[in-house]
Amino acid sequence: MAREKLALVGIGKIATDQHVPALADSPDWELAATVSRHGTVSGVEAFTDIGDMLAARPGIGTVSLCLPPVPRFAAAQAVLRAGRNLMLEKPPGATLAEVHALHDLARAHGVSIFATWHSRMAHAVGAAKRWLAGRSIHEGRIIWREDVRKWHPGQDWIFEAGGMGVFDPGINALSILTEILPAPVHLTGAELDFPANRQAPIAARLDLSGGISADFDFRQEGPQTWDMEFATDAGLMALRMGGNILEIDGQRAEGQDSIMGEYPALYARMAELVRGVASDMDLSPMVLVADAFTLGRRNIVETFEF
Amino acid sequence: MAREKLALVGIGKIATDQHVPALADSPDWELAATVSRHGTVSGVEAFTDIGDMLAARPGIGTVSLCLPPVPRFAAAQAVLRAGRNLMLEKPPGATLAEVHALHDLARAHGVSIFATWHSRMAHAVGAAKRWLAGRSIHEGRIIWREDVRKWHPGQDWIFEAGGMGVFDPGINALSILTEILPAPVHLTGAELDFPANRQAPIAARLDLSGGISADFDFRQEGPQTWDMEFATDAGLMALRMGGNILEIDGQRAEGQDSIMGEYPALYARMAELVRGVASDMDLSPMVLVADAFTLGRRNIVETFEF
Repeated sequence: MAREKLALVGIGKIATDQHVPALADSPDWELAATVSRHGTVSGVEAFTDIGDMLAARPGIGTVSLCLPPVPRFAAAQAVLRAGRNLMLEKPPGATLAEVHALHDLARAHGVSIFATWHSRMAHAVGAAKRWLAGRSIHEGRIIWREDVRKWHPGQDWIFEAGGMGVFDPGINALSILTEILPAPVHLTGAELDFPANRQAPIAARLDLSGGISADFDFRQEGPQTWDMEFATDAGLMALRMGGNILEIDGQRAEGQDSIMGEYPALYARMAELVRGVASDMDLSPMVLVADAFTLGRRNIVETFEF
Repeated sequence: MAREKLALVGIGKIATDQHVPALADSPDWELAATVSRHGTVSGVEAFTDIGDMLAARPGIGTVSLCLPPVPRFAAAQAVLRAGRNLMLEKPPGATLAEVHALHDLARAHGVSIFATWHSRMAHAVGAAKRWLAGRSIHEGRIIWREDVRKWHPGQDWIFEAGGMGVFDPGINALSILTEILPAPVHLTGAELDFPANRQAPIAARLDLSGGISADFDFRQEGPQTWDMEFATDAGLMALRMGGNILEIDGQRAEGQDSIMGEYPALYARMAELVRGVASDMDLSPMVLVADAFTLGRRNIVETFEF
């Protein structure tokens, strides 16, 4: 089958590290154009304005956005109004209301829209979900601690208002949690630590219903931790390394690995959605983050500089 | 027709001022029980525990909750699990995720649930909506300034985490805005002023799509202001006094008044929903508030004491 033409918008670190290699190996997609102020991909037609690209390349039916949350909306709206399918990096926007508006717009134009959560495609997430189905969870604990200087070097936007701060990685944990749990959860309390010189939190502790807690920290030097553990009626289940390793009672579980990488799996799913003229807009991870900002106690902590 | 039995939970200021008189005059409802730690209503059986009331009075088919947002969820869940219809004061909960969970629970039990927004029932809101339909709005301005000491004397919960602060009245403005506009809006920016000794904002300024702005302030002494103004292709429309007065180009419009008060109209609507086994859970005002907390810049301002 011929590969469908796709344009990639926002050629920064995540595009270069993940999207471009995933597209290069994809049986479904051909990277036909890029849009970016500075970045380009060798051998691919480069635009600096999304309107220009949409006008010049009517044969490009699908656009994938890798922009930070705040500028994402205007670009997304342009894509949908041009009748193209739309794939969104996480989080799908800076606000819930704008993402609802995009969903409505996609419906009105009869195109597919996909709010991606790449961590849900980690190797052991599907196996963890199957293991938890029908089991009763007494207690759960998420520990998500990474070094913002390593993963987002100099990216000041992440600490601006709307930049999400530690919820940028934390929402990955919440995207896995909301995928694998047998029943929905909601926030019952939260504490957010804002550096005195920043508008987004550098650490957060959440209490969720069903005895689940989360500890997010962006100041973790040395070994990085992306773990979650659940005490259940059938023993202790742990999902480690950002959803990639499943352990039952301390033993690594066999046969849980999906073979595909996270971004190749996202692009395969997007191809499925486009073929079925379907959409996938599960906003539950973003709702939990908005709820944490709404309900959370704010602490002011030490200033942070990259 | 016989009046249906209803229980009122949380006998505080809003219950006494609004719910009890509305129920006394209602052709649809009989106030059959109350649940409150301290408050009672003369001549009505009083409980202090909601579980006790639900067990003792199986003939009460509908429960109306007037609790602050944070403790609302546990009571709401108990009502729905007991198979009773549920009416919620605004906002319907402390978090979006818990309100989604309540909606799911109501569906699972086949009962009605109603997230009320009393300001939508103000006299001129319906007329304003009809006037704006099909018109093009160039610019809109909401000014919602009231004195928290007058309307919420000593209510410290309103400035606690999750208490909403100035969004407690501000969400009334947003509930009117989302009702009367011909198309949905989303937040593009916000600034929130937190008193140095409080966990919820005392003032907020919002920028919304379509050139709409909002100015919420809880420190307004003297005359109180609950106004919104829209510059349209057909002239200037103003909705004043919390949705009660409609003006077109500075002239008071005739014939816009709905006769019923806000709370009588809410209880009439609840009776309709229950008869139709239907629900009404428009969360758009709450989404805009959650988005403001997520996206907003935080300023620390002067401490506040009642």
